[in-house]
Amino acid sequence: MEITSENKSHGGRQLVVKHASSATSTEMTFAIYLPPQAGNGGRVPLLWYLSGLTCTHANVVEKGEYRAACADHGIAFVAPDTSPRGAGVPTAPDGAWDFGLGAGFYVDATEEPWATNYRMWTYVTDELPALVGAEFPVDLGRQSITGHSMGGHGALTVALTRPDRFRSVSAFAPIVAPGQVPWGQKALAGYLGDDKAAWRKHDAVALIEDGARVPELLVDVGTADPFLEGELRPELLDQACRAAGIDLTLRLQPGYDHSYYFISTLMADHVRWHAERLD
Amino acid sequence: MEITSENKSHGGRQLVVKHASSATSTEMTFAIYLPPQAGNGGRVPLLWYLSGLTCTHANVVEKGEYRAACADHGIAFVAPDTSPRGAGVPTAPDGAWDFGLGAGFYVDATEEPWATNYRMWTYVTDELPALVGAEFPVDLGRQSITGHSMGGHGALTVALTRPDRFRSVSAFAPIVAPGQVPWGQKALAGYLGDDKAAWRKHDAVALIEDGARVPELLVDVGTADPFLEGELRPELLDQACRAAGIDLTLRLQPGYDHSYYFISTLMADHVRWHAERLD
Repeated sequence: MEITSENKSHGGRQLVVKHASSATSTEMTFAIYLPPQAGNGGRVPLLWYLSGLTCTHANVVEKGEYRAACADHGIAFVAPDTSPRGAGVPTAPDGAWDFGLGAGFYVDATEEPWATNYRMWTYVTDELPALVGAEFPVDLGRQSITGHSMGGHGALTVALTRPDRFRSVSAFAPIVAPGQVPWGQKALAGYLGDDKAAWRKHDAVALIEDGARVPELLVDVGTADPFLEGELRPELLDQACRAAGIDLTLRLQPGYDHSYYFISTLMADHVRWHAERLD
Repeated sequence: MEITSENKSHGGRQLVVKHASSATSTEMTFAIYLPPQAGNGGRVPLLWYLSGLTCTHANVVEKGEYRAACADHGIAFVAPDTSPRGAGVPTAPDGAWDFGLGAGFYVDATEEPWATNYRMWTYVTDELPALVGAEFPVDLGRQSITGHSMGGHGALTVALTRPDRFRSVSAFAPIVAPGQVPWGQKALAGYLGDDKAAWRKHDAVALIEDGARVPELLVDVGTADPFLEGELRPELLDQACRAAGIDLTLRLQPGYDHSYYFISTLMADHVRWHAERLD
């Protein structure tokens, strides 16, 4: 593990870290913000943030406006990359931005040529939590998770699969039913093949239909989001949660789009919401 | 004038605007954030932010974390570019990042080949205020100004030259005495020539020594700023303010560097400080 940059911010430390990943067989980079409370020998709770298509760790670090709220509440904030990268990592043959680099979709690929490196599920659920817990003063007994778009999909599916691990889960403009929308169908078919039974483990709505449960969910989506009707389809999550008795707070935010201008507007509120559940 | 992007954020509107500038004889781009209070037919006060070396309007828009505070206090926030750009605009022959593009230093150049386009003083003090006042619901009777590094130099010199215009002035890690430090000497000699009398109008410490006055100043500088001793030299401002009876609040922020991680940490506090003076 190598800390490649460290900057004091809002009283804490914003770090960028590089390490060799056994999950992806590549070098991986992630960002972690340690609030001022992490400097006193104690361990602080941890909020995961999974990013959307085309992003690296850097987008939310630069534009997410999370540090002030994390410092206020004493929460560490971890932002992984969205795919493996580097020499030897296969990329989409058509140069697509919605598959391959920057688009790992938080699955362990089983199809070739992706299966060797595109193992973001194992990376974000096993390898990175173990590394972060070993190297930084965080309390793995108090974790929450959130994410944006593809990363909202990741946050929902990870939390629904490991409900014991997370005190709370929220999402910004998530892809809630990848098996039913173009971005998700392309990714799941590409990484997992044509057997749609395998897709259901990586589809929040399908997971809920199949019995996965969390007590509550917080989801914000902008009404001016250009992907609302074609890719996000929050109404499918609403229906699934109603049928399953999951307490979903779904907020349609008037006039907001899909960008970090939207995310940063709601970020402090999500951090506060998670903080109440991490106490 | 053309609005090239508009995004709802923190209840208001973040705009990026392009226009033909008569000051620089180029197209210029700036950013303006209009808080939610600007939507009701009234006019809101205006905080100027002048950026540092290598920046465009975009750096503070992405990393400055000013929108939440501006929305809270009902203040518009304008971020101009740092130099003219485009075909025909001369650039530093050595590809320097501290002269030419991104380094206009908020002066009207008198030396060739810079004198035609590098007229950022006129741009930020005359042309852009007139445009912003005509096109947006802002109250030019309530303006304040701040900036970072080279832009801190700009904010201080503009406010000291037009004290009647600004209710308050602050700066993040400003170059306070460009005539006495390498960045400033290179820029002032290049744009204004070797006559050091001309430099004094663009040097905050010299302006104060020569009788310019504002009632008070707020300046933050990080103790881990690598430019502290060689380029920023806040002690020179402190000495000048003491001699002149200017109420300078100079805060040395322990462990902070020269980056937007530092600026964003203090931004809400500067916005609040200006808001109290813009009421």
